[in-house]
Amino acid sequence: MTLQATQTGFVEPSLIAGVQERFDEVRRHSVKLGEPLSEEDCCAQSMPDASPLKWHLAHTTWFFETFILERYERNFSPSNPAFRVLFNSYYNGVGEKHPRAQRGLLTRPSLDEVLSYRHQVDNRIAALLHGDGDLAPIVQLIHLGLHHEQQHQELMVTDVMHLLSMNPLKPAYDTRLPLRHAAPPPLAWRSVESGVVHIGHDAVVQDGFCFDNETPRHRQFVEPFALAQRLITNGEYLQFVQAGGYENPSLWMSEGWEWIRSQGIRHPLYWQSADENRWQEFTLHGMQPLDLAAPASHLSWFEADAYARSVEARLPTEAEWECAVTQAAQPAGPNAQGGQPDLQQVFGACWQWTSSSYAPYPGFAPAGGAIGEYNGKFMCNQHVLRGSSCATPAGHSRASYRNFFPATARWQFSGIRLAKSLG
Amino acid sequence: MTLQATQTGFVEPSLIAGVQERFDEVRRHSVKLGEPLSEEDCCAQSMPDASPLKWHLAHTTWFFETFILERYERNFSPSNPAFRVLFNSYYNGVGEKHPRAQRGLLTRPSLDEVLSYRHQVDNRIAALLHGDGDLAPIVQLIHLGLHHEQQHQELMVTDVMHLLSMNPLKPAYDTRLPLRHAAPPPLAWRSVESGVVHIGHDAVVQDGFCFDNETPRHRQFVEPFALAQRLITNGEYLQFVQAGGYENPSLWMSEGWEWIRSQGIRHPLYWQSADENRWQEFTLHGMQPLDLAAPASHLSWFEADAYARSVEARLPTEAEWECAVTQAAQPAGPNAQGGQPDLQQVFGACWQWTSSSYAPYPGFAPAGGAIGEYNGKFMCNQHVLRGSSCATPAGHSRASYRNFFPATARWQFSGIRLAKSLG
Amino acid sequence: MTLQATQTGFVEPSLIAGVQERFDEVRRHSVKLGEPLSEEDCCAQSMPDASPLKWHLAHTTWFFETFILERYERNFSPSNPAFRVLFNSYYNGVGEKHPRAQRGLLTRPSLDEVLSYRHQVDNRIAALLHGDGDLAPIVQLIHLGLHHEQQHQELMVTDVMHLLSMNPLKPAYDTRLPLRHAAPPPLAWRSVESGVVHIGHDAVVQDGFCFDNETPRHRQFVEPFALAQRLITNGEYLQFVQAGGYENPSLWMSEGWEWIRSQGIRHPLYWQSADENRWQEFTLHGMQPLDLAAPASHLSWFEADAYARSVEARLPTEAEWECAVTQAAQPAGPNAQGGQPDLQQVFGACWQWTSSSYAPYPGFAPAGGAIGEYNGKFMCNQHVLRGSSCATPAGHSRASYRNFFPATARWQFSGIRLAKSLG
Amino acid sequence: MTLQATQTGFVEPSLIAGVQERFDEVRRHSVKLGEPLSEEDCCAQSMPDASPLKWHLAHTTWFFETFILERYERNFSPSNPAFRVLFNSYYNGVGEKHPRAQRGLLTRPSLDEVLSYRHQVDNRIAALLHGDGDLAPIVQLIHLGLHHEQQHQELMVTDVMHLLSMNPLKPAYDTRLPLRHAAPPPLAWRSVESGVVHIGHDAVVQDGFCFDNETPRHRQFVEPFALAQRLITNGEYLQFVQAGGYENPSLWMSEGWEWIRSQGIRHPLYWQSADENRWQEFTLHGMQPLDLAAPASHLSWFEADAYARSVEARLPTEAEWECAVTQAAQPAGPNAQGGQPDLQQVFGACWQWTSSSYAPYPGFAPAGGAIGEYNGKFMCNQHVLRGSSCATPAGHSRASYRNFFPATARWQFSGIRLAKSLG
Repeated sequence: MTLQATQTGFVEPSLIAGVQERFDEVRRHSVKLGEPLSEEDCCAQSMPDASPLKWHLAHTTWFFETFILERYERNFSPSNPAFRVLFNSYYNGVGEKHPRAQRGLLTRPSLDEVLSYRHQVDNRIAALLHGDGDLAPIVQLIHLGLHHEQQHQELMVTDVMHLLSMNPLKPAYDTRLPLRHAAPPPLAWRSVESGVVHIGHDAVVQDGFCFDNETPRHRQFVEPFALAQRLITNGEYLQFVQAGGYENPSLWMSEGWEWIRSQGIRHPLYWQSADENRWQEFTLHGMQPLDLAAPASHLSWFEADAYARSVEARLPTEAEWECAVTQAAQPAGPNAQGGQPDLQQVFGACWQWTSSSYAPYPGFAPAGGAIGEYNGKFMCNQHVLRGSSCATPAGHSRASYRNFFPATARWQFSGIRLAKSLG
Repeated sequence: MTLQATQTGFVEPSLIAGVQERFDEVRRHSVKLGEPLSEEDCCAQSMPDASPLKWHLAHTTWFFETFILERYERNFSPSNPAFRVLFNSYYNGVGEKHPRAQRGLLTRPSLDEVLSYRHQVDNRIAALLHGDGDLAPIVQLIHLGLHHEQQHQELMVTDVMHLLSMNPLKPAYDTRLPLRHAAPPPLAWRSVESGVVHIGHDAVVQDGFCFDNETPRHRQFVEPFALAQRLITNGEYLQFVQAGGYENPSLWMSEGWEWIRSQGIRHPLYWQSADENRWQEFTLHGMQPLDLAAPASHLSWFEADAYARSVEARLPTEAEWECAVTQAAQPAGPNAQGGQPDLQQVFGACWQWTSSSYAPYPGFAPAGGAIGEYNGKFMCNQHVLRGSSCATPAGHSRASYRNFFPATARWQFSGIRLAKSLG
Repeated sequence: MTLQATQTGFVEPSLIAGVQERFDEVRRHSVKLGEPLSEEDCCAQSMPDASPLKWHLAHTTWFFETFILERYERNFSPSNPAFRVLFNSYYNGVGEKHPRAQRGLLTRPSLDEVLSYRHQVDNRIAALLHGDGDLAPIVQLIHLGLHHEQQHQELMVTDVMHLLSMNPLKPAYDTRLPLRHAAPPPLAWRSVESGVVHIGHDAVVQDGFCFDNETPRHRQFVEPFALAQRLITNGEYLQFVQAGGYENPSLWMSEGWEWIRSQGIRHPLYWQSADENRWQEFTLHGMQPLDLAAPASHLSWFEADAYARSVEARLPTEAEWECAVTQAAQPAGPNAQGGQPDLQQVFGACWQWTSSSYAPYPGFAPAGGAIGEYNGKFMCNQHVLRGSSCATPAGHSRASYRNFFPATARWQFSGIRLAKSLG
Repeated sequence: MTLQATQTGFVEPSLIAGVQERFDEVRRHSVKLGEPLSEEDCCAQSMPDASPLKWHLAHTTWFFETFILERYERNFSPSNPAFRVLFNSYYNGVGEKHPRAQRGLLTRPSLDEVLSYRHQVDNRIAALLHGDGDLAPIVQLIHLGLHHEQQHQELMVTDVMHLLSMNPLKPAYDTRLPLRHAAPPPLAWRSVESGVVHIGHDAVVQDGFCFDNETPRHRQFVEPFALAQRLITNGEYLQFVQAGGYENPSLWMSEGWEWIRSQGIRHPLYWQSADENRWQEFTLHGMQPLDLAAPASHLSWFEADAYARSVEARLPTEAEWECAVTQAAQPAGPNAQGGQPDLQQVFGACWQWTSSSYAPYPGFAPAGGAIGEYNGKFMCNQHVLRGSSCATPAGHSRASYRNFFPATARWQFSGIRLAKSLG
C-alpha cells in the first residue's frame, strides 16, 4: 500500500478497530513528545528549517483535516478557516501558506487551542471511521497520515533539540533516555558481488505501507562492493578532526569546502571543546562529555563524504545500501558466504548518508492532486539517507525507506556507514 | 539629576519611602503590561529590533542587579551567573551579550523564573535602600533604572504590537484602551521669532530627572519659523497615499526612495486595504477601520519627511520643537503674541519626527564606565523624535526628552508635526 | 588516454609533430575568439559564474605553465610570479587564488601582456616538446591542457554573450555565424529495450582522449525507455510559456518554484517580449526575432524538468542518453529494430540536460595532486548535460562526455531532449 | 551665483570668451586624468560606490547635453538616445537610469566613442555660447556643469585609485605627483569665542559660484571651542592602531563597532602590514612605506570619530569649522587674539570629517525640476566633510563648501581635524 493508492472496496470491521487503535497510539505519542516541555518551548523556532513543536502538532492534524475530513466528511466545515493557511507546510495545491520562517511567531493559537484542535479532529476521524460509506480510501489516507505524523515525530525531537542547543543554558530535553554506548567492535566489511538487483518496496513480500518514492520496484546493476558492518564512532571522527580534516581542502567537495570556511565549521554540529582534549556534545540530556563509542552524529553530507575520503573509502549508493541490508537480513542458505560480518546499527542509531542524489525511480509517478507534492517535488539537490535513527518512532523503519536532506543539513541524527568498491 | 551624576551625601528617610513607593509602582506596571498575554506571547521575537516581553522584564531587572546590587550590595552574588550575558542588551563594558536576534529562542528561563528573578532583585534593592551606607548614589541609580524601565515599558507595548501584527489572526493586545479620536481642528500655525534660545534640560527650573543626552543646556540660534498646532491625521495622510505620494520620487530622500521601492512600501506600517476605499489599521484592539481623525502613526522618518515635502512644509528641528513647546507652556505675559494657537498633542499621542540627526549637545560628556554606553554610542544615523506617545508611561514625558530611531523605524507610535520657515 | 594517466615511454617523432600542430591550432583558436571584441569587452565580468575573455586566455596559459613547465622545464622560472595566484581558477593544491568575483577588476596585466604571456608559454612548451627527456607524460598533459582550453573556448563564447546581453545596447558578438534553423520534423521517439549496458569511455574502441569523470567504464541496468529524436524547439517552449507554465507550481521542483518566483523568471534567459505576441531573443547576432524552429536554449535544469513534466515526459538519465546515442550510432544489423527514427541534434546544437546528478562512476578515482581537483570535487548539487552545443569547438564532442552545471545555470546553450519510460 | 539661479539678462561678449576658456580648460582636464590609464582601466568598476572613468567622462557630458542642449538648442536631437539612460546617474526627473552597480559592464560605447561624444557636445555647447538668444541662463548652467564636472574629477582619481588598489599587482596611477610630507609641527589649538555667527555662502563678499546646499546664509550660535591647527598624521593614527584602538568598543559608536567587527577592519583602508612594525600604504604611486608625516587619510567617519574620542577631543561641527576658517582667513585687526596658531591644511590635503549630519540650512530650497535632485535628496544618513583634498581640482575649494558621505565611506581622501569644547 503506497501513498498514492486509492482503491475502493469493503473493509473488514476487525480491520477498522485496528486502524482506530493505531491512530490513537500514534496521535497520543506526538502529544507525549511535548510533555517534557513548556508552552514557550513548544512555540519557538530556532531556524527556518526547524518548526515549533506546537506547529508540528497542528500541521499533522491539518493533514487529516485537509486530506480526509475535507474530502469525505458530509457537510464538512473547517475547525478554523485560518488554520488551512497557517498549518499548510508546502502544499501549493491546497493554496496559500504561512511563511515558513515565521512559524515561531504564531503565539496564537495557543498550545491549548492546538491540543483542542487535535482532539476535535481526532473525534471527527473516529466518527468517519465508524460511519458508513466507502472506508477503503479513508483507511488508506489514515495510514498515510499516520506515517506522515511519524515523520514529524522525528522532526519534533530534532527540532526541539536544535532549539535547546541554541540556548546558552543548554537545557536537557528528556533525561530518561539512555545515552551511553558500549565499545564498538573493530570495523569489518561485508562484501557483495556484482549483479542485477531489485530495488524499492516489494509489495509482494512486505505487505506494509510505503511512500510513493520507494516505488516502483525496479532493477539496478551493482558492481562489486563492500559495506562497513557498523557506523563510524565519535572516537574515529575525532581522529579526523584532530588530524586536520577540516583544514584540508583535498578531502572536500568544492562546495563543501566553501561552506565550512564561510560558516567557520570545524567539528560536528553539537560538539564543543573547552580545549583540544576535552570535548563535549550537546545531547537530549544537555551537555555531556563526548561519548567516543557512540556513532558520530549530526553530520552533514559534506562532512560524511570528506570523512570517507580521508580513510580511502566512500559513502555507499542507496542501491548498494539497500541490497546489502536486504541480503544480510535473509537467512544464510547452503551457499552462504562464510565469515561475512552481520550488519549492525542499520536501524535506530543514526540515519546513514548515501552518495546518491534523491531522484525518482524509473517509472515513478507521484499521486494526483496536492498529495502528490508529498515527495516528488523535492527530488533536486538532496541526498538520500537510509536506515533510521534513535529519534525515529517505533514501526517507522524499513529497508526501502528513503529519507533525504540537502548536503548541508546537520540537525538530524545523521552519521556514516562506509563503503568501498571491490575488484 | 542626570544619568551620570554620582554625588554622595545624606538622604532624608522620608525621601527613601518615596523612592521605594515609586520603585514598587514602576516595577509593578511592567508586570501588568504582560497580563493580557500568554507565556508564548511573552517569549516570541518578531524582528531583531523588537524584543520579547519576557526579555524586557528580565533585562530591566538585570539593570538593577548589574548597576546597583553588583556595586553596592555587600557579599554580592548573582541571581544566576548566566543572566549577566543573557540579559545584557548592549553594554560592552559589562562583557558578552546574547545575540540580539536570538532573544526569542530563550524559552528558558521560563516566564515564571523571570518573574521570580524580578521578585528577588526587588527584595534585594529594598534591603539596600533600607540599609545603612551612603544611599545618595544608590537612589540616583534607582531613578535611572526606573526611567530605563519606563523606556522599556513603551517598547513592551510596541514590540508586542508588532508581534501580534505578524500573526494572520491579528489578535488584540488589550481592548480596554479607548481608540477613537474626535475630529481635529483645521491645521494652524504657531510662529516663533528668531533669536538665541536655550536648549536642553534646565536643572534650575525642572528639578526632576533627565538623561545625559539632554545636557548640557546650551544656546542655539533659531531663524523665524512656525510649528503646526496639531499632528497630521490619518485622513490627511490618506490623501497623500491616494495622490500617489509613494510613487513620486521627487518627494523622497534618495535613500528613502530606494528603501520604499525595494521593500514594496506603499502605506504606513499597520495599514491594510481590501480595496482603495476601505482601509483598515492594525491597532492594540486588533484590525479596525482606519480612524481618519486619529494622528497618522507608525511612520518612518522617510515617510514623515516625504509627507511634509508634499504639502510644502518640512519637519521641525529639535531646537525649534523644544523652543516652541517651551514658549507655549509659559503663561502669556503682557507682550504675548495674540492669536497664536495652543499646541496640541505635544505629549501622549505620537512621537514627532524632527529633521535633526541625533548628535551630542555642545560639551556633552557621557557617564563613566559601562553606563556611559546608555545614550552616547547611538549618536549616528538616527533622527530625534520629540514629545511622547500613547504608549509612553505616565511621568515619562518632558520637553527636553530626546527619543531617537533610524530613518526606517516604523514600529513606534511615530507621527508628524509640520514646521515651516518664515521671513 | 584519460586525465590522470601518467605513463612513461618513448614517443614517436612523427607524433610530436602532430601534437605541436594540434597545440598551435587550439591555442590560435582561443585568440581568434577574442577578435571581434575590444580590449574593454575582454576585461569585463558580468557575473561571478562568468569570467572575462582575457582571464580565460591567461588561465588556459597558466594551466600549461603550472602543470607542465613548472614540472618538466629545467631551471623553471615563472613568467610572472603573481600570475600563479591571479590565474588559478580553483586548484587549492596549487595555492592561493584571486577571488572569483573580482576577475573583472584585473585591468592589469593588459590584454597585450596576456597575449605576450601566451606567446612566451607557447614557445616554452614547443621547446620542451622538441627537447630530450621523457616526452610521454608531457604529451599527455598537453592533450589534457588542450581539452581544458577547449572547454574554456566554449565558456569564452557563453561568457561574452552574457556580458553583451547585460548591455542595453545589445551588441552582437559576431554576425558571421548562421543563426536560422529549418522547420523541425514532428517529434518522434526512439525506443530502447531494458538490459545491462556499458557506460563510460571505452578505451578499446575509442582511442582518443577522455576526462577522468568518464571512467571507469562500468555496467548499469536500464529499464525500457524511449528518447526523443530531436530537441524541443522555441516554438514548443513558447507554448509552455503561453499556457502559463511559469505560473503553475505543480510542474516545478519545490526549489525551482521558489527560485523562479524570487527571481521573477518567466521565460528563457535571453527571451524578451514587447508584448505577448512579439518575442525576441538575444543571440550572438544581437537581438533577433524569436526563431520558432531553433532549439529552445539557455534553459536551466529547473525549466527543462518543468517543461518535460508539462508534456507528460521526463528528462533522460545520463545512462539512457549515452546508451541510446551509442546504439543509434552503430550500423543497424540484421536484427535492427525497424522504423526507429534517427537521433538528431545530438551534438552541435544545445547541451541536453539529464535527470542525473553528477556523481562518480563506480570505482572512480581522480588523478593525484592538484590536477585531481579538475572534476571530482564538483560532484555535488550539479546535473549532468550530454551532447554538445553550437559553442563547443570542433573535436571536443563525444558520447561519453559529461558536462555539468547547477540546476539554476542558464547562460550555457542548454536545451531539452525528452525521454519517457516504457512498459 | 548658485545652482538654482536662473536669471535672464544680457551677457557681455568678453564674459563669453572667459566662459568658453574655462569650459575648455575644465573639459580638457577630465580627459587628461585618463591619460595614464588603459582602455580597460577606464572601463572597470571596483564597487557600486565607484564608477568607471569612462562613465564619468560620459556622465559629465550627459549633464551638459541634458540640462543645456536639450533645453536651449534649437532642433535638439540627442547624440545617442540610449545615452540618456546609460549615463543618467540619479536624476529620477530625467527618467530611467542604468543600474549603478552595472556601470562596469558597459564595454560599449567604447572609450573612443565616449571621447567623440564629448567632442560633439563640446562643439554644440560652443555653438550655443556664440549664438544669439538669451545667454544668461546658459552661462549659469555651464558654470554649474563645470563645477559638477570638477566634483567628478575628484571621483575619477579616488575611484581609479580604489580600482587599482583591488589589483594584487598594486599598480601606480601616476607617479608624477609628489607624495612625501615634511614633519608636522606639534598639535596646537586655535580658540574661538561663543557668539552668533553667519554660516553659508556669502554672495556679497564672494561673487563666485556655490551649490544650493551652501545657502541660504543664516545665523548659528556657537559655544566656545578650539580647533586643531593641522590634521592628524599617519604617525599619530598609527599610535591609535597600536594602542588597540580598533579593539576597544568604548571608543566607537555602536554602529561603527558592529561595522568594523563584521568587516574585519583594523586599520585605514589603504594601509597594509607585513608585520606590526612595517606598515605600507597604497597610494597613487602604488604601495609605499607608510609616511608618518602625511595626514592620515582614507578614514571613515567612524574611525575619525573614534580617534578623536581616544585623545579626549571630538570632531568639529561644520559651523565651528566654517567659522574658525573664516575668522582665520581675515586679517588680524587691532583686537586680534594674540598667539593664535594659523590653520594649516585647510584645503588641498584631506577632506575633514565634521560631527554634523548633512541637513538643509534653514530656509533651504532646492532648484526646481530634475536639477533640484543635485544635492537635496541626499540629506539623510550622511556626514559633512569640509575643506578639500589633494584630489580636488584647482579652483574648486571654498570655506562654505559642503562635501558629504556616509559614515562608512573610506575611499575618499578623508582625514581628521580635531576640535574641543571650551569653558
